[in-house]
Amino acid sequence: MQAAYRPIRIGLLGAGSVGSQVARLLIENREELAKRVGAELELVGIAVRNKNAKRDVDLPRELITEDAESVILGSDIVIELAGGIEPAKTWIKMALNAGADVITANKALIAAHGSELTALAQQFGAQLYYEAAVGGAIPIIRPLRASLAGDKINRVMGIVNGTTNYILDQMETTGASFEDALNEAQALGYAEADPTADVEGFDAASKAAILAGLAFHSEMPVEKVYREGITSITALQIETARQAGYTVKLLAICERAGENGEGLVARVHPTLIPLDHPLAAVRGAYNAVFVEAESAGRLMFYGAGAGGKETASAVLGDLVSAAKRHLAGGPGLGDSTHADLEALPVQAIFTRFQITLEVVDQPGVLASVAKQFADNDVSVETVAQNAGTDSDLALLTVMTHSASEAALERLVAELAKNSSVKKVSSVIRVEGV
Amino acid sequence: MQAAYRPIRIGLLGAGSVGSQVARLLIENREELAKRVGAELELVGIAVRNKNAKRDVDLPRELITEDAESVILGSDIVIELAGGIEPAKTWIKMALNAGADVITANKALIAAHGSELTALAQQFGAQLYYEAAVGGAIPIIRPLRASLAGDKINRVMGIVNGTTNYILDQMETTGASFEDALNEAQALGYAEADPTADVEGFDAASKAAILAGLAFHSEMPVEKVYREGITSITALQIETARQAGYTVKLLAICERAGENGEGLVARVHPTLIPLDHPLAAVRGAYNAVFVEAESAGRLMFYGAGAGGKETASAVLGDLVSAAKRHLAGGPGLGDSTHADLEALPVQAIFTRFQITLEVVDQPGVLASVAKQFADNDVSVETVAQNAGTDSDLALLTVMTHSASEAALERLVAELAKNSSVKKVSSVIRVEGV
Repeated sequence: MQAAYRPIRIGLLGAGSVGSQVARLLIENREELAKRVGAELELVGIAVRNKNAKRDVDLPRELITEDAESVILGSDIVIELAGGIEPAKTWIKMALNAGADVITANKALIAAHGSELTALAQQFGAQLYYEAAVGGAIPIIRPLRASLAGDKINRVMGIVNGTTNYILDQMETTGASFEDALNEAQALGYAEADPTADVEGFDAASKAAILAGLAFHSEMPVEKVYREGITSITALQIETARQAGYTVKLLAICERAGENGEGLVARVHPTLIPLDHPLAAVRGAYNAVFVEAESAGRLMFYGAGAGGKETASAVLGDLVSAAKRHLAGGPGLGDSTHADLEALPVQAIFTRFQITLEVVDQPGVLASVAKQFADNDVSVETVAQNAGTDSDLALLTVMTHSASEAALERLVAELAKNSSVKKVSSVIRVEGV
Repeated sequence: MQAAYRPIRIGLLGAGSVGSQVARLLIENREELAKRVGAELELVGIAVRNKNAKRDVDLPRELITEDAESVILGSDIVIELAGGIEPAKTWIKMALNAGADVITANKALIAAHGSELTALAQQFGAQLYYEAAVGGAIPIIRPLRASLAGDKINRVMGIVNGTTNYILDQMETTGASFEDALNEAQALGYAEADPTADVEGFDAASKAAILAGLAFHSEMPVEKVYREGITSITALQIETARQAGYTVKLLAICERAGENGEGLVARVHPTLIPLDHPLAAVRGAYNAVFVEAESAGRLMFYGAGAGGKETASAVLGDLVSAAKRHLAGGPGLGDSTHADLEALPVQAIFTRFQITLEVVDQPGVLASVAKQFADNDVSVETVAQNAGTDSDLALLTVMTHSASEAALERLVAELAKNSSVKKVSSVIRVEGV
């Protein structure tokens, strides 16, 4: 097909690791993209904070500017890759107000203000695309928005942070401590100098909020996502898990909860999953999202969860969609939040737990511990007793049946008062059994 | 959101295992679907061949008719689940001609006439959806059409036939013969009474043609797809493969080929893949499609590849998209075939092979066989020698480096003439190394 239309003007905000790759691909693949879309995609400007900063990719100097507003107002489609809440939010609103479609990879912004921005897009007949915000190159937003739009999703479980998956995988493979694995991840560029957003689960929590909103047609405020990071996970916990047939992953889990499923819980925490679960095979910095739907059954989407080039692929996919829509005309299609499931606290769900306890190694202790489990409505599936760190201590590893978070909290408080229990060494939730 | 529009009229053609589930879900989830779409989806008719046939699902009698034409002409969106080429093709053309969007799960029809039907849809501003045609419930069409539309796909490898994956998995797990595993699959309803379409690879070849067309923006006539089934695979081959660290899967593979990648090869055949490849973990009747793209890297889409309810999920996803588009207005978006890569024969590619030979067990035989490999430009990576079926025979298992199909064909012909070679027992391609 000949490109019969005037070029579609593309404005890029940000030229970091993703932005510079998007610019490079737009320039290198200009001809091919024009054929796919049916019109030229012309990169008209690249707004950056500092024109003179050094960049990995050589970008045309004449396109680079510090004037974001002129880039936005001179574009048919705006790609926001600056990150952070402001000025990204102001820029996106400016673009949508001007009727431009917007593509972003900004998970923090979408998690915090996605519905406000989607509503604004609807109002102006524009569309907001954010495939790159979750799972990097993995197509997950579009499958949830469209492919599964006729199904009832019961649960989404994702490995959505590559840094933490890499660290846990290294700890499992090499027996390294959390600190050593983190140092290695930083040396390899998988973790940032300040790793808080990754290792404390903030990044995964933003993605959980986005996934929950889309999968359940409801709003999930990011501050309602329960969050626990991986900083206290030890190599011993991972080794113990492995021997019992499990692996430890930082999962983002979104599911219906409450009586009759009228609520919704989203949570991020280290989780034991059986070694034969599809998510257990996700190694290194890879990501995967596992979906359980009423009709479709079990689905999994797997791929690179980060990386400039990989994330750029998702951005360009959105760009081709936006550009085709721009040519075809017609308004954008919004996301539906009609279901309005209430965001419930993590106490609303039931899970299995693995609890490890250091106890005094003497007769009667197991019985006294078992009684505390029973008294607190936490039913025990298996108990394994091993030698403890000290000769007069034993290590109990208890796998529970499904129990409420509330019951578990009470139990742990009670166990701490038991004079035979030296320490509650670890409490990890178990999923996918 | 209140449903403010008049109901969108949905016509269903076919009430088999998928059709009856689609009808059930449309009726049961009427209210929820109306909220998602913003208008009622009203099932106005179900066209069947025989009104009085017994069905698994209780469908409203007043909707069932043998008059397909009246259903088509009275619908805004037509769902074709009759299967086969005719009358399905005529019906779809009639619907598109009338401006209705069409949803189908008919892989044979899309593989054979997809571009004709897509062009017709374009002409009338309608859209043809066929997410359910490949991979059942797995969203793969939409990711290829849209999410990866800005990337360059180098290769697609899929387990796209659940019946053969179940059979091969059973053979591997239980050591059963092909015949026994097939009988079991038939008893469980995973295989049809006449299993030819599955076990000879015809079904997978249709899906390979569809995937190749979408992934490479080209036309791939189904008759140009190289096809080999699994009927001659033995439990011994699978056991031998496993010992060497491989598993046997029936793969549909589509990739660029020829000098400078100006061609395209699609092929379906039993394939050895390493046990640590993501596709190796796809067990039972599950399907998965593995994609290698220039920027996105390695992606995998996993889920139920068949089943009435599962396939119905994909159909309903398409229906929600079509209905939203119907409300929003605007023309449909076609698929691009601009790349026009030429469909090349399987001889255009290079692969690794595992070749097993029964040879006379005497000195000098290995040397004479090795010379034949070298003379035919097939470079050997490893050779393993085991006891043969007879005391005076030995079994050679040769893993080659990448070789052309043409060189391999010559080699096999030459080996058959070697008087020390009793039999070329098996030749299997190896991928994913």
